[in-house]
Amino acid sequence: MEQQQSVGDYLFSCLKDEGVTDIFGVPGDYNFSLLDTLEVFEGVSFINSRNELNAGYAADAYARLKGLGALITTFGVGELSACNAIAGAYSEHVGLIHIVGAPKSSIQEKQESVHHTFMNGDFAVFQQTYESLCAYSVEITPKNARLEIKKAIAIAKHERRPVYMKIAIDDVTKTISSRSSTYCKEDSEDPTSLNEALMHIKERLEKAKNPLMLVDMKVNRWGMEKDVLALAEHLQIPVASLLHGKGVFPETHPQFIGMYSGAFGNEEVTHIVEAADCILAIGALWSDVNLAKHTVKIKQENIIDIQPDMIKIEDECYLGVRMDTVVQHMCTWSHDRSLRIAVPPRLYDEPKGQAHEPLQAAYYYHYIQEMIEEGDIIVTETGTFAYGMAEVRLQKDVNYLAQPGWQSIGYATPATFGACIAERDKRVLLFTGDGSLQLTVQEISSMLRNGCTPILFILNNKGYTIEKYLNVETPIQKQPYNDIPEWNYIKSVDFFGGDAFAVQVETNGQFKEAVEAAATLCQEKLCIIEMIITDPLDAPPYLMKMREHLKEQQN
Amino acid sequence: MEQQQSVGDYLFSCLKDEGVTDIFGVPGDYNFSLLDTLEVFEGVSFINSRNELNAGYAADAYARLKGLGALITTFGVGELSACNAIAGAYSEHVGLIHIVGAPKSSIQEKQESVHHTFMNGDFAVFQQTYESLCAYSVEITPKNARLEIKKAIAIAKHERRPVYMKIAIDDVTKTISSRSSTYCKEDSEDPTSLNEALMHIKERLEKAKNPLMLVDMKVNRWGMEKDVLALAEHLQIPVASLLHGKGVFPETHPQFIGMYSGAFGNEEVTHIVEAADCILAIGALWSDVNLAKHTVKIKQENIIDIQPDMIKIEDECYLGVRMDTVVQHMCTWSHDRSLRIAVPPRLYDEPKGQAHEPLQAAYYYHYIQEMIEEGDIIVTETGTFAYGMAEVRLQKDVNYLAQPGWQSIGYATPATFGACIAERDKRVLLFTGDGSLQLTVQEISSMLRNGCTPILFILNNKGYTIEKYLNVETPIQKQPYNDIPEWNYIKSVDFFGGDAFAVQVETNGQFKEAVEAAATLCQEKLCIIEMIITDPLDAPPYLMKMREHLKEQQN
Repeated sequence: MEQQQSVGDYLFSCLKDEGVTDIFGVPGDYNFSLLDTLEVFEGVSFINSRNELNAGYAADAYARLKGLGALITTFGVGELSACNAIAGAYSEHVGLIHIVGAPKSSIQEKQESVHHTFMNGDFAVFQQTYESLCAYSVEITPKNARLEIKKAIAIAKHERRPVYMKIAIDDVTKTISSRSSTYCKEDSEDPTSLNEALMHIKERLEKAKNPLMLVDMKVNRWGMEKDVLALAEHLQIPVASLLHGKGVFPETHPQFIGMYSGAFGNEEVTHIVEAADCILAIGALWSDVNLAKHTVKIKQENIIDIQPDMIKIEDECYLGVRMDTVVQHMCTWSHDRSLRIAVPPRLYDEPKGQAHEPLQAAYYYHYIQEMIEEGDIIVTETGTFAYGMAEVRLQKDVNYLAQPGWQSIGYATPATFGACIAERDKRVLLFTGDGSLQLTVQEISSMLRNGCTPILFILNNKGYTIEKYLNVETPIQKQPYNDIPEWNYIKSVDFFGGDAFAVQVETNGQFKEAVEAAATLCQEKLCIIEMIITDPLDAPPYLMKMREHLKEQQN
Repeated sequence: MEQQQSVGDYLFSCLKDEGVTDIFGVPGDYNFSLLDTLEVFEGVSFINSRNELNAGYAADAYARLKGLGALITTFGVGELSACNAIAGAYSEHVGLIHIVGAPKSSIQEKQESVHHTFMNGDFAVFQQTYESLCAYSVEITPKNARLEIKKAIAIAKHERRPVYMKIAIDDVTKTISSRSSTYCKEDSEDPTSLNEALMHIKERLEKAKNPLMLVDMKVNRWGMEKDVLALAEHLQIPVASLLHGKGVFPETHPQFIGMYSGAFGNEEVTHIVEAADCILAIGALWSDVNLAKHTVKIKQENIIDIQPDMIKIEDECYLGVRMDTVVQHMCTWSHDRSLRIAVPPRLYDEPKGQAHEPLQAAYYYHYIQEMIEEGDIIVTETGTFAYGMAEVRLQKDVNYLAQPGWQSIGYATPATFGACIAERDKRVLLFTGDGSLQLTVQEISSMLRNGCTPILFILNNKGYTIEKYLNVETPIQKQPYNDIPEWNYIKSVDFFGGDAFAVQVETNGQFKEAVEAAATLCQEKLCIIEMIITDPLDAPPYLMKMREHLKEQQN
């Protein structure tokens, strides 16, 4: 049997084995054989996106929820449109398989000047372009398919990074000529290093009076949420998250104190974290966002920095030590500690503002927090929402998708489509600003066409408010480039076609009503709540504090 | 004075000197200093696009009309979204300046993990990605700015290719520290080679009984339309164009016989061209499209192949010979030839079909041909329109923009915006299919916001008809991936906001009426004519012939 398999069938069966049952993309004449093969392949569907960048974003969100995602594009024009999405997956540690349909192998060999090329016979140039944006790139042939497809998928899974496969259109239907093969990629472990690290951690923890756990995004990417929760409950110490790690730890858990963001975050959380004398940081990314523009004030010597493949404590660096092994070991340690911390109230626990007043952040984040349910998937766009939503308490088992590191505006709308396809039975909520939405708006059409029923919250504050906040050198009125055309967002449904609940709200009361209506209606149709903001600079405290800080830096 | 200039001011003054008075782009926090500088710079405007790919396409069209174009994006997320547009400019020989605002130089030096990066301290990776997509890439600093900015612009102009400049946000406002410098890039000429080439051409031309001129795209890119016209009139021989070279030679000229496309084009033109015993090919690109899938039957030994920097005749290749020099020399030759050819009728000279009948290609191309006026700018999308419009006779001084080589669907709508900005007093006509439009539809909003008044012809044939034609292996009903959501295109105006004339037509008569109405109304507002096609496979003869040919190849 195995010998009879075509390259395309083998590729799709490998992806199916990994749980990838939907592949995003855009058709083009060099990927027809891939799409035709997929059309009759049982158990994996092709999901048409409106353009390749959007397909890449959708596949990224799909991968975050299901472990791996995939997209198919055509040669040159198609693949290059997706560069930003692939690079985003690299930056954010997401396993993505980018499959590119290429011209016939004979055309490539003869170096013909065909369309979608540079007209110079160079068929390797786009793969070269991708080399620095991927963990692995390869040209699949009938001869190498059996090894290379498995290898590329294994690398994507192991590194949580995108990989690139180029396949000539005529090779897709050819029979695989190589024998069965396996490829396994695992971090090697160093038992001595592991033991030393564990001893060092134990010693530090036992000495600590106020130990604390700080969880971040790599816990999610390495699929260790449950292990980390078990460890926290075992150790009985308070837990905070970093901004990249929003949603990694259950936010209603009695040990969870909130998000730590240095000078910009909740002051009580900041106080607790900065008073800790031993910080067990698990899967942390030490980025400018997580460091809140370097306003975080935790001492390097107090951090036990547990990374996926190494541990740093004080000046020691233990290589060849896996995060999962360490966490599992620590769960077996005995101790007599008990939790002695009062969880501070969250920023949006209490409602503020009156129903008849113009819609404002202090009010709407409270109602967003109220409406979020167990099991929801939340997709938050880069922009003001990213900082406000970070302070909203999430219910249990909520998946929270965002790009705090790569921060590509436009990501969230196609990502919402990807999330709807990945989890057809879950409720998906998008929180996006108008500026970002305009970049990738056509993916609302894909959602309508595929019967997806997310609730789309569109913050209409007439421009790139986040950019106005960040450019402190120039008065806001002298930044006309940060203004955008005023669209009538609820009219998108008439334009794209389809059934939807779409409403524009201007007051706090209208917002509350719309949210209540959508909560019911989203069982059967897509919902759009366009939030008209009167004060274009209304924003969460995080942003206001950041702007003040940037201004001080300026002087 | 010169010593006081900032890097940003110097950059924009160099661009202004080249006639670039509008720069497309999208704001982002690493390009604020560029945009702030531009905001107060006299004579160059920033034109906000809805996303970076669209900005790149718009700048490409602008460059085709004005010689050079430019776009500004932000680091990582912004620049990578534009890859496809930049690669398209490379493939199609368009001079484009891509300016990227990068993080502060001190952050780069310290290799900090900041947003819009791979979080690994690598700030060179995106420039590396671009290296293979550009003729030149460089990081601009106050020290090298005076030389490198001039050099990059000179290369873009000379090679008719994109170039890439990265500038750290804090370097933009710093004073240039280098002295004045000049950079000049010209092809060196070899007088011996030139003389030999000229003698060879002369000998072949004098011997020829049926000489013919074949013009193509490089005549346009190297700005030689007038010289080539003068040469044709001097030589008194018939002129045909290749598909890439649509519009390069005035199509109402008595010497112009039409477009030559092998087995797919006008049969009379094919007959005349293939009967010629000496073909003076000027600026030709020998691509799959121009060779009509290798169905062109002109003998290699009959071609005098004049390229921008060399000439090929039979087995001889003359290097160091410039196209412009050769053409000018040939204009001085004496001869006693006179034109002896009857210009064949054009495919769409006569109207076909009745007013009440469903709208069809045989009818509407005739009326499109009738409505085109002297001086119009026509932007044609890849797809069925590309092949139909190629057969439409253009009036004098019509600029015809398309991507016959790169063929990136979605190009034409943002390109129309770019054309409107480049030539504010000219009439711009877009011909796009529904499938392509969906990729980049938000640029209609930019046109509305900027008061542009093009006429947009949207062919609504419910899918990627061109792709259905090209995939001959699979019955059309088994290509569901080539279907697209059905949008209500005239509703785009309500969604995006603005004043426009938007109409949907289904019969030949309605189309004619709409065209007449738009011809008047486009003086004051944007016009949309949505052409509903009942038979989704109605297409120009070119495509039908190509499909038959591909089917034969299959067997």
